[in-house]
This record gives sequence, C-alpha cells and structure tokens, in this order.
Amino acid sequence: MKWKELLVNSTNNRRTLLCIGLDTDMDKFPEELRSGELPQFDRNKELIDATADIAAAFKLNQAFYEIQGVKGVTALEKTISYIKENYPDVLVILDAMKGDIGNTSKAYAKAAFESLGSDSITVNGYMGKDAVTPFSDHEDKLVFVLCRTSNKAAGEVQNTPSPVEPLYMKMAEMIGGWNDKGNLGMVVGATFPEELKKVRDRIGFQMPILVPGVGTQGGDLEKVLRHGTDENGWGVLINVSRGIMFAFQKEEGNYIEAARSAALRYHEEIRSRMESLGRW
Amino acid sequence: MKWKELLVNSTNNRRTLLCIGLDTDMDKFPEELRSGELPQFDRNKELIDATADIAAAFKLNQAFYEIQGVKGVTALEKTISYIKENYPDVLVILDAMKGDIGNTSKAYAKAAFESLGSDSITVNGYMGKDAVTPFSDHEDKLVFVLCRTSNKAAGEVQNTPSPVEPLYMKMAEMIGGWNDKGNLGMVVGATFPEELKKVRDRIGFQMPILVPGVGTQGGDLEKVLRHGTDENGWGVLINVSRGIMFAFQKEEGNYIEAARSAALRYHEEIRSRMESLGRW
Repeated sequence: MKWKELLVNSTNNRRTLLCIGLDTDMDKFPEELRSGELPQFDRNKELIDATADIAAAFKLNQAFYEIQGVKGVTALEKTISYIKENYPDVLVILDAMKGDIGNTSKAYAKAAFESLGSDSITVNGYMGKDAVTPFSDHEDKLVFVLCRTSNKAAGEVQNTPSPVEPLYMKMAEMIGGWNDKGNLGMVVGATFPEELKKVRDRIGFQMPILVPGVGTQGGDLEKVLRHGTDENGWGVLINVSRGIMFAFQKEEGNYIEAARSAALRYHEEIRSRMESLGRW
Repeated sequence: MKWKELLVNSTNNRRTLLCIGLDTDMDKFPEELRSGELPQFDRNKELIDATADIAAAFKLNQAFYEIQGVKGVTALEKTISYIKENYPDVLVILDAMKGDIGNTSKAYAKAAFESLGSDSITVNGYMGKDAVTPFSDHEDKLVFVLCRTSNKAAGEVQNTPSPVEPLYMKMAEMIGGWNDKGNLGMVVGATFPEELKKVRDRIGFQMPILVPGVGTQGGDLEKVLRHGTDENGWGVLINVSRGIMFAFQKEEGNYIEAARSAALRYHEEIRSRMESLGRW
C-alpha cells in the first residue's frame, strides 16, 4: 500500500494514530540488553512485535543509528525490512530532518526511499522549495516538512514576526504551496496546540501532521486531537518515542512488557479522547 | 590541532582558503572507476592525495555516503581517518545539515565528532538554539550554521521580511548570540555576495564563513573574498565540490589529473585575488 492508503486504513479501520518512535539509544539499555550480534535490531524487533497491532507508524530517528556506525546502518536497514515484511499495514517514517540543495537532496531521497525502503521522511524547509521537491518528487512517498517544532527554543526562529504573522505560519503556507504532488505533510509540536489550531485553520485538513512532543515533552494530547483531526478522525500521527521505548526505566516489567503497556496506554488515551470528540 | 589553529595555519601560513568537497556520487563515475572493494574510498583517497597540499579543508557530503548503505559508512569512516593520519593540517567538515532537538542532536554530535572524528559539521538552525548547542558544546569543534544558502529557492524562506530586515539577517544575529563557546561559523552562499557583505558588516570577522556556490553554481569569487575576509585574509572557506571531483567529465586527463588541475585553478584564482586585494 502507498502512504495515503496506509494512513486512511489506520485512521478508518485500524483506529490508531499512534506513531512509535524507534529512537534506539543503546546507551540507555542495561548491559544484558546490549549483548548479541546486533542488539539494536533485536530491541527494535521485540518492540515492533509487541506494538505493531496498535501502531499507525514506526518512526526511526536516524541519529541513534548513525552513532553506531556500520552496525547502526545494518540495524536501520534490517528494521525497515522487518516492518515491511511482517507489518505491511504500518507506515515507516525515516526521521532524518534532511535539508539540502538539489543534487544532495536527491541522493538523500534515494537513500531513504530506495535503498532503505522508507515510506516517509522528515525534511527541514529552511532552504526553500529546492530542499523539499527532490523528496516529494517520489510521488508515492510522504514528506513531513518542519513547521512549528516541539522544542523549547523553537520560537526563537519560528516565531520571528514577518510583516503580518510569525514565520511558522508563513512556512505552513509555503509548504501548502509546495504541495503540487499532494504528498506533503508537516511537523507541528504537541507542545504548541494553539499554533497547531492556527495552522489547521489556515491550511485545512488535506495534509497530515506529524505531532511530536506528547510523551516526555508533555504536550497536550486532547487539544492536539481536537484541533488536528477532522470529523472522521483524519489528520495526525501522534509520535511517542522515549515514553514507550524507555518505559522500562520507570515502570514494572521487562523491556518489552513495559513498552507494550506504555504503548497501550497512549493508544487507549487517543481512542477514548477521539470517541469523546465524536470522531471515532 | 584544533579547528582554530588549523584555520589560522591555513590562512596565514599555508595560504589556502580552498575547501574541497568530497561529494562522491558513484553514479557519476565510469565503470572502471567503480570497481574494487570500496571504490568510494579509493576515489576519495586519490583526490585527497592529489590536492591536500592546496586544501584548507575537505568537506564530506553525507548524502553520497548514506546512499551507499553500509559500504558508504565504511568509506566515510575510512576517508576521515585517512585525512587525519596523513594530512593533519587539513580541516575535516562533515556536511550533514543536522537540525534536531536536544537528545537527538547530542547523538548526531557524538556520531560526527567522536565516532567519525570530524573537526566540524554543518547545522540547520530552524529549530533554534536547542538544535545548535549540542554541537557547539563540543568546544574544540567548529559548527557552521546555515544563514543564507546558495540555492535558487533559498530566498523564499530566508528573505522573509521580519519587521526590520530579512530572516537571514536575524539568523546571522541569532547565530552570533548563540556563540558563547566561540566555535560557531555560518554558511553563506557565494551566489549572494551582497548578502554576505551585509552579514559581515553586522557580525564582524570573528566567525568563519563556509561559502558554497563558487563552482558549478557560478558564485562571484572576487566579491566573496573582498567582503568575506579581513585584512589578513581570515574569514572564509571557499568550497568547491563537483567542479573539482567531476572535472574529468569536461576536461582533459584522467580522474585525478583533471581534479588536480581544477583544484589548482581555483587555488590560484583565490591566491591571485587575495593578492590583488592586498590581503596576502
């Protein structure tokens, strides 16, 4: 299935908006979970098997693979293949925040979509349309462009007032303008739900929004769902990374039991809020 | 040597500002240059040996390694080690355009500086200070933040008028404000020399500027040197990637002869213009 069918199926049939982050930071695992030939892949495989039924997407944060060198690239490749083979209903997002000019972005797009086989990628639009279209030219892939990010300092740049309104609103409009293939989405952090509302009010509901910041960063899930989805529940992917993968540090049970129960908790909270909103 | 000593030494003693891009796109090489166990590393090694005497920096564009998967990571690692061992006078820049929040950027920084051993990196500041300090916290490393990039569409975002002046000028000021460790630089494209002048007028000459866009993109070298360097010739690295590595497609001689003669031509043009400007 292509990205659109995958997301529609997750929204309408599988009733999940949960994006599970595979930020597989090996330093955070205890000794016994770091042994073996390719422990990063092993941990991913376990987490995927434990949560794929409630996952709309898996998002792989490239940093944590890059830091492992050759082993990390192998783990990244194997993880994506594993998801594609075993859970073809689940979207794969390569969270790589790419942003570079034409020929370089073409190479990144080829690496992400062809070599790795990802369905989707995150992209930084600071360099303008040049930096986005080499990705969106892959018409069956989904490209999330940063709009209003979830981190504390994001406003420094993104709230720069342009003559009428802040930069992130101009960015939202520009992303809309770049969307001639219909396969752009954007990133808006859950930590700024009012900004999310403004973006939706302006651009409508065509583009999906990837929403980080709900877990560890403490974003407001209810507001995100209210402002971010349409009457059918279409429109957002709620990402949780550390809050699921590293739940074992704070909760009962082994790595995988803790991850499963944290994922289920987010999943159920999303469902119940969507039901309260009358959208599912 | 640390980055500052390396750049001072290149500027004052070695008299070179040339940054040679290792954008080693294997698709652009003919069959006979693509054989062997690790041809990407072999091509780099030959180019490095042929030009290190006139190079202030080698810049490795991560895209072209990523696209080769595990082999690319191996080539990237081996290339950096090779430069560090054989040409310790030459700065190594990982051109990766990273831009992500805290814990992710920390992982990218560790990957770039510790695992790979790069001296410097390129970073995208759209996410604000959070996205920059995890890199500049490595105090002996140099961090180039995107300011006014060289690509055609860059102005769409970067020329957004904030109340007083365009976004890239605000970005230049912010980068200056983030520079508490004294190890930030910025990227300003040679295709916009007037903007480069404005940036220098505002921020002075403390921060080095990495200048892409002189080769294939046709930027104005004379203006870049005039506006970008101080009276001692300090202040810029002039990057040329395709114009050197793929010179063999247009010029006489084999891969390495063509690359050497293109590099020499850029090198000599820089020198002669610096002499005309009375700065060397």
